[in-house]
Amino acid sequence: MIRISEAYTIIENHARPSHTEKVTLESSLGRVLAADVKSDMDMPPFNKASVDGYACRKEDLGRPLKVIEMIPAGYFPKQNISAGTCSKIMTGAKVPDGADCVVMVEFTSEENGFMTFTGTTTSNFAIMGEDAVKGQTLISAGTLIRPQHIAVMASAGCTRPVVFSSPSIAIFATGNELVEPSAIPGPGQIRNSNGYQTLTQCLNAGFNATYQGIIPDDPDITYKTLAEATEKNEVVILSGGVSMGDLDFIPSVMEKLGYRILFEALKVQPGKPTTLAVKDNRFIVGLPGNPVSSLVQFNLIGKKLIYQLCGSPYEWESYSVKMAETYSRKKTERTGFTPVKLNANYEIELLKYNGSAHIQALPVATGFLMVHEGIAEIKQGEYGTYRPL
Amino acid sequence: MIRISEAYTIIENHARPSHTEKVTLESSLGRVLAADVKSDMDMPPFNKASVDGYACRKEDLGRPLKVIEMIPAGYFPKQNISAGTCSKIMTGAKVPDGADCVVMVEFTSEENGFMTFTGTTTSNFAIMGEDAVKGQTLISAGTLIRPQHIAVMASAGCTRPVVFSSPSIAIFATGNELVEPSAIPGPGQIRNSNGYQTLTQCLNAGFNATYQGIIPDDPDITYKTLAEATEKNEVVILSGGVSMGDLDFIPSVMEKLGYRILFEALKVQPGKPTTLAVKDNRFIVGLPGNPVSSLVQFNLIGKKLIYQLCGSPYEWESYSVKMAETYSRKKTERTGFTPVKLNANYEIELLKYNGSAHIQALPVATGFLMVHEGIAEIKQGEYGTYRPL
Repeated sequence: MIRISEAYTIIENHARPSHTEKVTLESSLGRVLAADVKSDMDMPPFNKASVDGYACRKEDLGRPLKVIEMIPAGYFPKQNISAGTCSKIMTGAKVPDGADCVVMVEFTSEENGFMTFTGTTTSNFAIMGEDAVKGQTLISAGTLIRPQHIAVMASAGCTRPVVFSSPSIAIFATGNELVEPSAIPGPGQIRNSNGYQTLTQCLNAGFNATYQGIIPDDPDITYKTLAEATEKNEVVILSGGVSMGDLDFIPSVMEKLGYRILFEALKVQPGKPTTLAVKDNRFIVGLPGNPVSSLVQFNLIGKKLIYQLCGSPYEWESYSVKMAETYSRKKTERTGFTPVKLNANYEIELLKYNGSAHIQALPVATGFLMVHEGIAEIKQGEYGTYRPL
Repeated sequence: MIRISEAYTIIENHARPSHTEKVTLESSLGRVLAADVKSDMDMPPFNKASVDGYACRKEDLGRPLKVIEMIPAGYFPKQNISAGTCSKIMTGAKVPDGADCVVMVEFTSEENGFMTFTGTTTSNFAIMGEDAVKGQTLISAGTLIRPQHIAVMASAGCTRPVVFSSPSIAIFATGNELVEPSAIPGPGQIRNSNGYQTLTQCLNAGFNATYQGIIPDDPDITYKTLAEATEKNEVVILSGGVSMGDLDFIPSVMEKLGYRILFEALKVQPGKPTTLAVKDNRFIVGLPGNPVSSLVQFNLIGKKLIYQLCGSPYEWESYSVKMAETYSRKKTERTGFTPVKLNANYEIELLKYNGSAHIQALPVATGFLMVHEGIAEIKQGEYGTYRPL
């Protein structure tokens, strides 16, 4: 049984991005940058008005100033400012040479071609190169691309960013007790929820994943199915079949396929029987069968592995949040995850939770309280580690 | 100039979802449920073993028990447990009648068909109906569907959820100073970053949006373009063209198209000139032209409007987070947003930020510090309102 931090070190040592590719700006969303994005010019590329108003000389503000030009954004000023003159200027336009300030239109009046300043404060304008200089790195390789990065790449003319290739991911559920959601479960059966949960977690993160069905509890069928899936996909994710029952032959199938098991038990509650196996930078992830365990372990281990293969460090987002009530537990040997919700005061409220099969506890949960090893209680008013869903 | 809360009330009073549709389970991700999802059976549907082990009677544990059956998950037990007997059982299988406990396989030994209990604690099993009873509402209408909801719908056999229809969204940038990212800006020009930033924010949230280009500063072209776009889309989003310059004729174009302006200035820094106009549950959103303003206001106003049209209440995620250093500002009349990052201790660190045009400040930002109206300073060690990016 290993700790999350040990599992993370193992993943970091074994999983690495393989190829890079150029994609369109829009389709780079959610991918990981493989090369720095640099500025191809000074930003702003000229002294730029930040308000609508008049560009002039500060020392002239006490008298009416002759308006010599109107400078809309997108046009270059034709005239310089000299004593006694000003130019009307729009937000985003280049400030004409000779001007050392811009006054906001709201603090002026204009009559017969002369502007009078009626306010008390002038505005600064943005100085050429103050945001970035030509050649400066704007976004570093390894950055997970979000909309703000798209904006910065657009501003720098980077329309075909180089990103790491995404691994192809195949998702299976395992177990004779499972039927697909469209079926009515027979005696002793339940519906498969993990397949669709894992698939939509992948889709939500922008991963390249498909759900491929339920594998029955049969070593030969499991071997054949995994042989084909591991051939075609860099990552195969299974749920179920990895605890200690007589029918949990999946670890032996992994080994028969030439995969080496990196770990098969995590010091985490729920989700102890989480397995990771590797063969030449290809991976099989065995998630637990209980749906809450499976969801927690996909966030902890599955995402860590996939982001690592995509070239990005990953850490489940984490906040230190005040407890609205006291949490306590009996067993403390594992790091615990219990579903909670943030209330209107942004404090942690506990939810009714029957254990790792109780997926019905989650529709109103906003995240999990993570309780560190050895900790039995977090009192009301203390701070707990909150990991949002 | 109105407050965010007032803008939200206006949006809630004017924007409502229009139609509903049935979609596949997988494509319901990111949509909003239009009808409650109820359980079609008790969950679990039978008393279910939570561990691999033996089902037996507690009072019998002191002696070797005859193993009368092996019950894999997915099969119904054929025999009841009576005094002196037990059945081997796998996680997820139905506990046979007569048994009142399950003991974990790790705490047992089996020899010659008899099981001896070697541990000190027994496990409970999950009681039929403890997670949900038949007919119980599992997920309420109005819920934004995330992977955990997909799992719950799968478990309840809800494979064609009823969701609200998504509005069609058209995105434009405005301004003669803009060129597309693939072009080299001429004198006085800059590249359009807002169009792609807004587009990918929409795509990231799963909205149905397209970017449709730059509209030049010309009232006739603007009128024609918006007439067509508003005909074909429920929401039209513009960036730029909504401050006080002589060329900011967009509000008058909105009115000429029969739209009523609901607000045109927000008490927010950056992003004061944010405009919302309505006509028969169709909307035009005017975002500011500066890229940081545009990003903040899309999160505040754009998302609120679109989620409302999708049937979901929306609030930009918010956490109370400790300041790693002191933040201060001079002007306090507006609610401020400044880019920050969470450090390794989950505390707020400030970033170099030149103002609302400084989109290059954002690649390392993890979110914004929101500073309430009237507040000039938040000291190191105090808690600030953090809104993640």
